[in-house]
Amino acid sequence: MLENLFSSRVKLDGKSRLVGLFPETHYIDNISFGGGAPEERLFPVAELKEAYQAAVQKEGAHAFQYHDIRGPEYLRQFLLKRAKDLVGIKNVDDSQLMLTAGGQQGIELVAKMLLNKGDAMAVEAPTYVGALAAFDNYEPTYYNVSMQDDGADLEQFEQLLQVHPEIKLFYTVPDFHNPTGITMSIAKRKHLVELANKYDFIILEDTPYRDLRYLGQSLPSVKSFDTEGRVIFLSSFSKILTPAFRIGWLVASPVVVQALTKLKLAEDLEVPYLPSATIEYYLKNNDLDEHIQSLRDLYQGKMEEMTTALNRYLPGVKVSYPEGGFFLWLELDEGIDTTKLLWENSVPKEHLVYVPSENFYANRDCKNGMRINFTGPSYQQIDDGVKRLSRMLLETSKKEFFVKAV
Amino acid sequence: MLENLFSSRVKLDGKSRLVGLFPETHYIDNISFGGGAPEERLFPVAELKEAYQAAVQKEGAHAFQYHDIRGPEYLRQFLLKRAKDLVGIKNVDDSQLMLTAGGQQGIELVAKMLLNKGDAMAVEAPTYVGALAAFDNYEPTYYNVSMQDDGADLEQFEQLLQVHPEIKLFYTVPDFHNPTGITMSIAKRKHLVELANKYDFIILEDTPYRDLRYLGQSLPSVKSFDTEGRVIFLSSFSKILTPAFRIGWLVASPVVVQALTKLKLAEDLEVPYLPSATIEYYLKNNDLDEHIQSLRDLYQGKMEEMTTALNRYLPGVKVSYPEGGFFLWLELDEGIDTTKLLWENSVPKEHLVYVPSENFYANRDCKNGMRINFTGPSYQQIDDGVKRLSRMLLETSKKEFFVKAV
Repeated sequence: MLENLFSSRVKLDGKSRLVGLFPETHYIDNISFGGGAPEERLFPVAELKEAYQAAVQKEGAHAFQYHDIRGPEYLRQFLLKRAKDLVGIKNVDDSQLMLTAGGQQGIELVAKMLLNKGDAMAVEAPTYVGALAAFDNYEPTYYNVSMQDDGADLEQFEQLLQVHPEIKLFYTVPDFHNPTGITMSIAKRKHLVELANKYDFIILEDTPYRDLRYLGQSLPSVKSFDTEGRVIFLSSFSKILTPAFRIGWLVASPVVVQALTKLKLAEDLEVPYLPSATIEYYLKNNDLDEHIQSLRDLYQGKMEEMTTALNRYLPGVKVSYPEGGFFLWLELDEGIDTTKLLWENSVPKEHLVYVPSENFYANRDCKNGMRINFTGPSYQQIDDGVKRLSRMLLETSKKEFFVKAV
Repeated sequence: MLENLFSSRVKLDGKSRLVGLFPETHYIDNISFGGGAPEERLFPVAELKEAYQAAVQKEGAHAFQYHDIRGPEYLRQFLLKRAKDLVGIKNVDDSQLMLTAGGQQGIELVAKMLLNKGDAMAVEAPTYVGALAAFDNYEPTYYNVSMQDDGADLEQFEQLLQVHPEIKLFYTVPDFHNPTGITMSIAKRKHLVELANKYDFIILEDTPYRDLRYLGQSLPSVKSFDTEGRVIFLSSFSKILTPAFRIGWLVASPVVVQALTKLKLAEDLEVPYLPSATIEYYLKNNDLDEHIQSLRDLYQGKMEEMTTALNRYLPGVKVSYPEGGFFLWLELDEGIDTTKLLWENSVPKEHLVYVPSENFYANRDCKNGMRINFTGPSYQQIDDGVKRLSRMLLETSKKEFFVKAV
């Protein structure tokens, strides 16, 4: 039994958070509300092809050689300026910036840097399933902080911290939270930093959707309130340009960047030149924010289409109304098991995919919710998919599940 | 002190194996024998540009979307065929193949799969510094196995296994070993698998240089003798095509591939389409082995140039005579500290970079050797660099260091 040699972090029998998360359906009429994929039609294909050519042109054969762990200078300067101007991080300098293999590697490296087996950390409940997958492999003790309409319940969190001052990490998605779509209020962003200072923990602020706001005004980042270098601000090009190049970036204290860089070197040696330089040349010759605006326009329309459809076909169901991002969150009656529903009804009968709520809870202890994505499907699919969802929910639970909208 | 929150794997004060390994020198006449970089002039730049275009062409906008963790089918089939035909792995099937972000991620994932803090593992002494860096982060207890002219000393290893049956992993570079250049004999490859079966451990067979043989006949892989699925065969395109796309691959038991895949998902979510598909299209339209032959021809010439220069300028120094790979290994007299020499003499005075031996030992307990690379520098630099090396060694140690050649 080779498995006997595996480390305790490998739980082959245990449910995996990411394996089998998205059912492979081969129905031609399949509709997916499952993934968190951008709208392909808006990828700037021609510009990215040009940028790639420019990157190869500039370096010639050297473009295909090993490069370093820092990434291209112009790209680093661009990100530092962005961190100052758009994220509100004052006094940021080069020693505080690091490029990662997508946001996912940033999360994984932070877990690797902080977590010994059994160490205490707190997460929003629910939270991003991929982050839980990354944390799982360092076997932390999880503590959950409930979500409220203005972000994590910080009163509950402080009570938790009083009982468990050993908590060393809090993971949050403050902008258009994955999966609920909720945005954390300014007051809570400030207070969260105060808690981190008072109870001595580090905040990982994950912001893949930050630039994709469709309603209201952008809020200062949690990092912008950081007074003791306790906040790690994590972002990525995956949702605002393309996920294809796996380029994420983070801003943190120099000592944190130094530790994370050392860990990254041992994982993959470098920031690959071609992907990072392709983005660099795209940024030199194109206006990223103009592109982001075109994403905002399309996604806002799709979000409205989906909320309209939900109101039409699922009146009274409890649904989130986010100001941006990729997802809506549905909360159904207690007793509804959306995982069971997915595999027994939604996929085989309705050819509809969504992500059941249990995947977003550290302890998988909430079964009656679901995350639905509106950026990937077409307008027609959004309307059609919500119809299917409504039909299924009506059939399978005879309306009993409906709760009053809030 | 944020550092107080860091996990025990982060040793900021401790020497890093990879940080600062290669001195940043800005001398225009700098010569580097340090890195393990391929000769840039032989990268098939035009073919790779074409392949990239084909990959984008085929998928269109979808080329810039998220993809899956498996990688392109044609590439997977190509690698399975290669595993059968060139590596001698019988009955290999799709469930035993996995793509990684370069060979480095393969090493890191295997460490992550197997090692709880303090777990026992064995390494060749010396061994690849990047592997030690990856293992370090899982805090194993290292046991060293000395190198002989025909590979690791397996008698010594078995004595070790009798005392430490808890050893669960052995890491080996059997072909043109990094750093010594030594190739493991067929007899030892067979015997190593017998030891793994008898003492219940897993072998990680790392073969980045396997195809780069300049003298003699290719030997069957350790994996080809595997009877219980205990060998993980790891390879990469970095040394035989380009390191730019960070595509490595491994062949292992299905249960191992399943565990490693789950760990990779949590690190970076996928095998990026564009890099893997670019290699796929290169392979469809070009003969990789023809390209490898052109690498062999050039590298063999450079290796001969370097051994000639060593015989001319450093007669009697103990040097390895490998049959392939990237490196020669010099052993100097006890008492010579090649790390001290690098920073105090070689870099500042001779503008010459090499890698000191202590970096290749788990416990950094060997100071009097150095690894020198012959694939990166030009013929002129090889001759000139060895001259500088000779001059420095003569000056700094008044010839005392010379030991009889073997």
